[in-house]
Amino acid sequence: MITGIRPVVEDGRYRAKAALGESVAVSAEIFSDGHNQLAADVRYRHHQRDEWNIAPLALDNNDHWIGEFPAEELGRYQFSIRAVVDDFATWRDELGLRAQAAQDVSVQVLVGAEIIQACATRAKGADRRLLAGFASELESNATSAPSAALEIANDSELAMMVRRYLDPKTATTSTTFTVDVERELARYSSWYEVFPRSTSPDPFRAGTLVDLIARLPYIAKLGFNVVYLPPIHPIGTTARKGPAGAPAGPDDPGSPWAIGDASGGHSAIHPDLGSMNDFDALIEAADAHGIEVALDLAFQCSPDHPWVSEHPSWFRHLPDGTVRFAENPPKRYEDVLPLDFSSPEWRDLWDALFEVVEFWVDRGVKHPEVIMLAEAFTRPRIMEHLAKIGFSQSYTYFTWRNSAEELRGYLSELTATQVADYFRPNLWPNTPDILHETLQRGGRPAFISRLVLAATLSSSYGIYGPVYELCANEPLAPGSEEYAKSEKFEVRHWDLDQANSLRDIIALVNTIRREHASLQQNRTLRFHAVDNDRLIVYSKLSRGNDGTGETDDLIIVAVNLDPSAIQAGTVNLDLSALGLDAARPFIVHDLLSDARYTWTGSANYIRLDPLVLPAHIFYVEQPYGVAT
Amino acid sequence: MITGIRPVVEDGRYRAKAALGESVAVSAEIFSDGHNQLAADVRYRHHQRDEWNIAPLALDNNDHWIGEFPAEELGRYQFSIRAVVDDFATWRDELGLRAQAAQDVSVQVLVGAEIIQACATRAKGADRRLLAGFASELESNATSAPSAALEIANDSELAMMVRRYLDPKTATTSTTFTVDVERELARYSSWYEVFPRSTSPDPFRAGTLVDLIARLPYIAKLGFNVVYLPPIHPIGTTARKGPAGAPAGPDDPGSPWAIGDASGGHSAIHPDLGSMNDFDALIEAADAHGIEVALDLAFQCSPDHPWVSEHPSWFRHLPDGTVRFAENPPKRYEDVLPLDFSSPEWRDLWDALFEVVEFWVDRGVKHPEVIMLAEAFTRPRIMEHLAKIGFSQSYTYFTWRNSAEELRGYLSELTATQVADYFRPNLWPNTPDILHETLQRGGRPAFISRLVLAATLSSSYGIYGPVYELCANEPLAPGSEEYAKSEKFEVRHWDLDQANSLRDIIALVNTIRREHASLQQNRTLRFHAVDNDRLIVYSKLSRGNDGTGETDDLIIVAVNLDPSAIQAGTVNLDLSALGLDAARPFIVHDLLSDARYTWTGSANYIRLDPLVLPAHIFYVEQPYGVAT
Repeated sequence: MITGIRPVVEDGRYRAKAALGESVAVSAEIFSDGHNQLAADVRYRHHQRDEWNIAPLALDNNDHWIGEFPAEELGRYQFSIRAVVDDFATWRDELGLRAQAAQDVSVQVLVGAEIIQACATRAKGADRRLLAGFASELESNATSAPSAALEIANDSELAMMVRRYLDPKTATTSTTFTVDVERELARYSSWYEVFPRSTSPDPFRAGTLVDLIARLPYIAKLGFNVVYLPPIHPIGTTARKGPAGAPAGPDDPGSPWAIGDASGGHSAIHPDLGSMNDFDALIEAADAHGIEVALDLAFQCSPDHPWVSEHPSWFRHLPDGTVRFAENPPKRYEDVLPLDFSSPEWRDLWDALFEVVEFWVDRGVKHPEVIMLAEAFTRPRIMEHLAKIGFSQSYTYFTWRNSAEELRGYLSELTATQVADYFRPNLWPNTPDILHETLQRGGRPAFISRLVLAATLSSSYGIYGPVYELCANEPLAPGSEEYAKSEKFEVRHWDLDQANSLRDIIALVNTIRREHASLQQNRTLRFHAVDNDRLIVYSKLSRGNDGTGETDDLIIVAVNLDPSAIQAGTVNLDLSALGLDAARPFIVHDLLSDARYTWTGSANYIRLDPLVLPAHIFYVEQPYGVAT
Repeated sequence: MITGIRPVVEDGRYRAKAALGESVAVSAEIFSDGHNQLAADVRYRHHQRDEWNIAPLALDNNDHWIGEFPAEELGRYQFSIRAVVDDFATWRDELGLRAQAAQDVSVQVLVGAEIIQACATRAKGADRRLLAGFASELESNATSAPSAALEIANDSELAMMVRRYLDPKTATTSTTFTVDVERELARYSSWYEVFPRSTSPDPFRAGTLVDLIARLPYIAKLGFNVVYLPPIHPIGTTARKGPAGAPAGPDDPGSPWAIGDASGGHSAIHPDLGSMNDFDALIEAADAHGIEVALDLAFQCSPDHPWVSEHPSWFRHLPDGTVRFAENPPKRYEDVLPLDFSSPEWRDLWDALFEVVEFWVDRGVKHPEVIMLAEAFTRPRIMEHLAKIGFSQSYTYFTWRNSAEELRGYLSELTATQVADYFRPNLWPNTPDILHETLQRGGRPAFISRLVLAATLSSSYGIYGPVYELCANEPLAPGSEEYAKSEKFEVRHWDLDQANSLRDIIALVNTIRREHASLQQNRTLRFHAVDNDRLIVYSKLSRGNDGTGETDDLIIVAVNLDPSAIQAGTVNLDLSALGLDAARPFIVHDLLSDARYTWTGSANYIRLDPLVLPAHIFYVEQPYGVAT
């Protein structure tokens, strides 16, 4: 029986995910009746290669087998697991036990000779001769020289050879499953969302793509590698919304999500932002900074979008002949028309939407390298489903998980369950739609702690700036999660040099992420118990041999979740999981404050003053242990 | 999308389990794109019926839908889940919200008329006329009498009617899955294992099946409904084992698991135990007491079993021509030969084994009512697999789960995860092979607490007696889990009237189990926090309408896990899960001591003296609340 195979999504109905350069961790529950040992391996190949590669699986415990294969090319990898009864290993190990107990092993040695001879019969050429040789040597030593026989039984060349010719009648091969191997950026990315129209250095005019190009050095210095733009298309004038979502005045620019006017729709650029040449220049300039540009793909239209008149059937109409606008009764969004994806002419519509994607992909990166972030998080099951059907990364409920218990539970669900096979979390402490109460009340310390949490709990995270680094936290109204003077409806001008800017600490956190392989993956996230529930402590460990880094890299993060008071407590580290020696002190180097502490054993004291710094990001120095 | 359907085992590769008279709880994650409401139901039928029945599913939360169907016949039930977009309910509820917000709903009323008219088009006869009538009535009231229109929209007959004619283009039906419906005894059973040869009232001779018949009133008084016998077949003489597994002396009876001699094998009865007529009389006498007889089906042979000479190919042979005996190197079990289930003549062997099963089934119960208990618990994955492929009940690791944390974790795994769809735990505090250290050290209080745990944590449990009720706890050697003077190798004579016998409390516990439907199922097992980890508190709740009982039945069990000291603490009951009112005192009646306590709110004090009684089995009296 081979069951519980991972990474597998819904029994193979969807593909699991991996990133280039990673070791794909493979595991399964493998067992047979009886007490025989088994041998198992994973067969894998890139889907465009003919030849299968083989990597061994090893028994972990309780019939759980583990192994891995390298993801060395973009595209789809296929893999299956094969297991076979290993009567040779069973015999060899039992022979040792018998000999230890001083039992007469002569007949048992003959049993082994029979097993090896059977392998020889299945082999050809040199292998066959070699195996037959081992068998007859065993046979001749059976009675006369049992200790020589034991030595032959434990010959490592014999073990390797036999393994290839075990009885295929006892072998089972699993279904073949598929893993999508995406770019490294799908696994490790730092996003910065910004409204281009709010990037003007001139307080008397709105920003443009050219202004955004001028902003790139700043964003690069912050350490982000993705700049994420709200829709950059023409904005409709019909039922346009103004500040706070009220009807627009004559000078209001409207919501970028009310896409399209007579001048164009989803493949056009808002004339106030610039030209397609400006956009190309933006891509090029960003590339020079190692930054990629992400676009918000919002499949909805303003009433002035060309499609409304060209393809009325792509929209729903009311009995009075008007086009149905977006609603969440009793709320009405008259400036936005939803598309009818199940329209009778859905195929034309879907083709048009696909063309939009291709249009923008062609201006930036090439096809197989596209990374799609699913920004939908209204409902957990839909969020998971979008990840299953192929979105590279997903928004999460991180924004609303603020207590230690909530964070531990939620991140464990995302990183330590089967969800991790297909769902890559991208954590955002804020978005243009969400200014959480924690930030509203907690001020600067809360902005720092939520930043550190997002950036270290997940290998992908993002902030919506410059409001984030400037700690803007005024809500539209008490109890609201909407921003006051939201950029969704207004052009804003920001003073990036404001004294309380978090830009230095953001840059530092992103540097730490770049320099530490352990923070570029989520597989090894582990929470450690603390005796104060306003503190949270977790670690990430990257082994030098797992494809994520050159050497072992261990990071321990501690965050004070209380923005208003000093919190102290004792963490109880799971030392064996971290590969740390309980008896030897080790040095933890706080990469935020540059302080070093010597810790010993599992219980260590932590004290965090939110007015100084609400977090430690400890690097456990190499070699872990120091002389006592 | 319809996913995560339960009860389903490995995507339908195996069948889920239910018992006669139960409501089969069905659930699934169901969602579509967009914000439309859905309607969903479960279609089900006994596999021998043509017609499908339909039961509604209801939205629980987060796209999780729940429902149930009754298991009214033995055999296989098929079920599938069907979901459809309910644009009527979406429209109706949004219409209410619009009206509440004083919006003009006239056009929206027309939208509803269109939806209902579309349903009419799909309907026939009276339904069609009725639906068309509703549609036109709505239309005529749209502008003139919006409040009348609202009333029509909320007509319950309309809702029921429309549901049948929702747009089938938006419907999805899941795969069909199968549930095995077994006898009630598969769900709720109390087992008593006993060696017939140790039931003699005469200390100078071994017991017989006739002696066992005379023991039945005692077993019935203890309240067990299954008496479980080790193998009752002839015992081989070759390499026979004596006391403590040493070579047998001339008068030693041998191990019942060394099955078969010249007089017969798996279909014969040991002549010292009696005749086939005695066996039939045993079945009949047991039946009169409401007890069923379970046999140990041990597919292995003594060297004297007739199969050894008749079918040498069913066994493995060594190069020296001898038949291979059972071993766990360096341990040797020379009195037992394993069968070679993958023998070249495996089909003959398998047929012979099937005939053995049929032989004994024919002497007792009829075929579809047979209950199989998988006694294998060497490895968790194999234990689970045996349950998946059809064993009605399974041994568990309960014997080795003794701390509160171990018990909570393990029982939660068995009862509150998908394992519960196919795995029915049968908890044994002892077996002929296992005398756990807890019993060796803890003495009588430990015997009582382990009994109460087994009998109330699981709807099926068993003890191996009379050693259990007589608190026999001498191990073969210090650190061993084997019994001293094990009945496996010796005939024993027991004084059932020993003063320290637990027979009264066992009888009481089994009576409580019989009288309380909540203890006859595991679905509602819930652990409650206690501030003393030597105490464990849990509840089982049976609703009057779930097929397990006539009225609601709530049991709360508290056990002191420390056999050597009084333990006290405060339990924090999850009142809302129990349907208890936080503001009203309620009476808990300890069915063991007959004491009554008045409890209020979630926090309640518990104190258990192991020398008095290490457990409470509280019945929460009906009506739960009492006047304040």
